[in-house]
Amino acid sequence: MSTQLAADAVAVPFHETYAAVQQFYARQMHLFDTGAGPEWSETFTVDGTMELPNLPEPVRGRGALALIPPRAAAAAADAGETHRHWHGMVDVEPRPDGALDVRCYSLVFATRPDTGPRLHLVCVCRDVLVREGVALLVRSRRVTRDDLR
Amino acid sequence: MSTQLAADAVAVPFHETYAAVQQFYARQMHLFDTGAGPEWSETFTVDGTMELPNLPEPVRGRGALALIPPRAAAAAADAGETHRHWHGMVDVEPRPDGALDVRCYSLVFATRPDTGPRLHLVCVCRDVLVREGVALLVRSRRVTRDDLR
Amino acid sequence: MSTQLAADAVAVPFHETYAAVQQFYARQMHLFDTGAGPEWSETFTVDGTMELPNLPEPVRGRGALALIPPRAAAAAADAGETHRHWHGMVDVEPRPDGALDVRCYSLVFATRPDTGPRLHLVCVCRDVLVREGVALLVRSRRVTRDDLR
Repeated sequence: MSTQLAADAVAVPFHETYAAVQQFYARQMHLFDTGAGPEWSETFTVDGTMELPNLPEPVRGRGALALIPPRAAAAAADAGETHRHWHGMVDVEPRPDGALDVRCYSLVFATRPDTGPRLHLVCVCRDVLVREGVALLVRSRRVTRDDLR
Repeated sequence: MSTQLAADAVAVPFHETYAAVQQFYARQMHLFDTGAGPEWSETFTVDGTMELPNLPEPVRGRGALALIPPRAAAAAADAGETHRHWHGMVDVEPRPDGALDVRCYSLVFATRPDTGPRLHLVCVCRDVLVREGVALLVRSRRVTRDDLR
Repeated sequence: MSTQLAADAVAVPFHETYAAVQQFYARQMHLFDTGAGPEWSETFTVDGTMELPNLPEPVRGRGALALIPPRAAAAAADAGETHRHWHGMVDVEPRPDGALDVRCYSLVFATRPDTGPRLHLVCVCRDVLVREGVALLVRSRRVTRDDLR
């Protein structure tokens, strides 16, 4: 990232950044919940990574990331469930270079027509977000699950 | 709406709008949860509409809308429950004319003194919000339930 | 608080305040969930108070407040659980003197490795927040539980 871009990023007032991060997660996780793999993968940088507790190593790059939402949607459909990812308690810490360290709590709700909704997972999500132009992108994501601690 | 009003609305920076929408939902749904029918109905435009999955047609207008919260509060009381509506993952898309397309996830929690709390419903809420002066109002709301898909 | 400070406080635009309150809660409740007593107590004013439904009288002052998170963390650990506090539906009402009346819904999730996650509590949290320099602090907090109404 050029020095100019970094300087621009740092100059964004905190409250603008905070709203942008919330909006970003709302859009991003809805893409995930609808199984929109390619669109969801484009919310990561080209070489973005995601670490999940049930995977042996991080998933790296949009091509690999794009496979995750359709797989998750198919698994939910097989179980007769609709899944909803819910980020909240968003803690944003801007770095001097304009990147953002974000930690949030993350819930997954699962609903079946016959049995109603249930709380499926409680997770903590730690992201490094970066700006490309006006867009926020995930450079790295690390998700931990409270049931696997 | 006059052209001037629309132009003013469009000029609101995104982060201001985003905070206003969150504040609006916090206030609006608390009014609902306390059974405050008339006050809640005034968070809709005069001819505002709400589509609910368990109703055969949309509810239209403040008079009809005002009947919903007290009915819901009475039903919860009859069941010995306190209900809380919780909007989150708020996705705000401003239109050129200043109206806002908002999609959010919406939860309902129900608590009984003897059995504790439970997740009652997982919904998706799609609103068109408009500004009247400084206030946001719902022009139309469409709620879907994940257990009725 | 001096008149100058109060005037400064009032001048903060609503959307800036709203983002700051959300960020404050994310940080504060994560400190609680990790049992960080002294750090958590410093998110209250020196003589800050907290009223909880299961305590006979308000807890007053940082020294007493600092004891709460480690006790809660120890109780959760004894139960084999990880607890997460989740504030949402945040309603912020600035007072003329710059203090903030905040009401939010507050959830507690509890997760055990063997049984998975559950919704533990649904609460309402009513805070009076004040600014000290750039920081927000709780001057008084009153928590009610829906299962104890």
